[in-house]
Amino acid sequence: MQVITSKDNPNVKRIAKLTKRSQAKEEGLIFLEGTRLCEEALASGQTAVEVIVSENKLEWAKEFTPGTEPLVLSSNVFAKISQTVNPQGVAIVIKEPGIAADIPVSADGKDIYVVLENTQDPGNLGTIIRMADAFGLTAVIVSPTTCDPYNDKVIRATMGSVWHIPVVRKTMDECFGFFENANIETIATHLKGNELGAGDLKLPCAYFIGNEGDGLTDETAQRCTKLVKIPMKGKAESLNAAVAASVIGYELSKLL
Amino acid sequence: MQVITSKDNPNVKRIAKLTKRSQAKEEGLIFLEGTRLCEEALASGQTAVEVIVSENKLEWAKEFTPGTEPLVLSSNVFAKISQTVNPQGVAIVIKEPGIAADIPVSADGKDIYVVLENTQDPGNLGTIIRMADAFGLTAVIVSPTTCDPYNDKVIRATMGSVWHIPVVRKTMDECFGFFENANIETIATHLKGNELGAGDLKLPCAYFIGNEGDGLTDETAQRCTKLVKIPMKGKAESLNAAVAASVIGYELSKLL
Repeated sequence: MQVITSKDNPNVKRIAKLTKRSQAKEEGLIFLEGTRLCEEALASGQTAVEVIVSENKLEWAKEFTPGTEPLVLSSNVFAKISQTVNPQGVAIVIKEPGIAADIPVSADGKDIYVVLENTQDPGNLGTIIRMADAFGLTAVIVSPTTCDPYNDKVIRATMGSVWHIPVVRKTMDECFGFFENANIETIATHLKGNELGAGDLKLPCAYFIGNEGDGLTDETAQRCTKLVKIPMKGKAESLNAAVAASVIGYELSKLL
Repeated sequence: MQVITSKDNPNVKRIAKLTKRSQAKEEGLIFLEGTRLCEEALASGQTAVEVIVSENKLEWAKEFTPGTEPLVLSSNVFAKISQTVNPQGVAIVIKEPGIAADIPVSADGKDIYVVLENTQDPGNLGTIIRMADAFGLTAVIVSPTTCDPYNDKVIRATMGSVWHIPVVRKTMDECFGFFENANIETIATHLKGNELGAGDLKLPCAYFIGNEGDGLTDETAQRCTKLVKIPMKGKAESLNAAVAASVIGYELSKLL
């Protein structure tokens, strides 16, 4: 086993580039660091195409990534590529799960989709992916302007759910084309809608969540076949986007 | 009008100290910066005890804080005390809303309280305060170990709700003492609980949300009079703390 002790080593330079999300994305890869993130991905069936450990973490590599020859770095060199203040000495590179070309459909026809028109906050996106996985939704569909689902903050907030539930990137046009063709109800939240929980919801359906500041675009709201509103008996006029998505997801999951 | 052009001016030094949350907290004050945060607080009835504007923002001070003589700083000096990359040139200092000594009670007896045992993430705390305000809860009760509700990130995430709904700081012992004495049902989320939405909930009640990583302490869960679980038909085993709090708050608000 050779321990790399220079940050100028070409392998180290190559990995250092991948720690930049923009670079990894371009190559269709994801750099994950730290035991929790790495182990969650591996436990969910992701395969490490590269394993990078500091010299005192060889045992971890043997246990969690037995099929891949690790790149072993001195603690100092690991610290140079690390994105954290206290490096755990463990990182892997995986391939981006193929963002499916098609929106998945269940055999029983009881599909629930959450469609994010322009979610900007990584914490919100991660929380929505986690909620969708918990409530048994079929997929999370993100617009091209929604933030990168494989951004480090998003992955952390999903607590592993990003590896469990399909995340599909589609334009709003592609979404409506698919849903209209398949006769799937499309739901927008709107002040003029029926109150959520009134019992007039049915599956399959897709519900749309807009941008944190601006909500849904008029165009999207108008194209939906159904309007609902979340009853709010207090003073605040709106909810956090992830909270709104979760309350609707919770209510719809009662129909599963 | 005198424009302060030196960061060594004693007033500037005094304000600079208050931009540190720990210092402001010690003095029972809150430093707010930026038009949105300042205007939200003022619109909700908070009074500025100090107004700090850059020289080109005098009109703002005249409009929003007519009763207080502003401290006018040159743009350079304002930038020195600013906590943001692109200062808007507007800041105020307000008194911390007296964290009420008592837990408020409604005249109609239809109270819902959310009690946070040890919430650590400012975004979660802010989102919960906003949700509680939207769903018409009576108060948000935070343990002494829960993060500071007047932390800048919390205030931002509440979107103004922190000024609308009482936030009360109490130990778990004080909470249970109050709820038991007033015969208010106390609800913990627990895998052995009845499914939320099963129709066996009643008001008044208080529900407890635990720490992000560890959930509720056993001690708190055992002391509650009722256990509920949020039905999750998917694969993820848990929800983000703010999502769990919101789904329960939403379901309970149906009883209002």
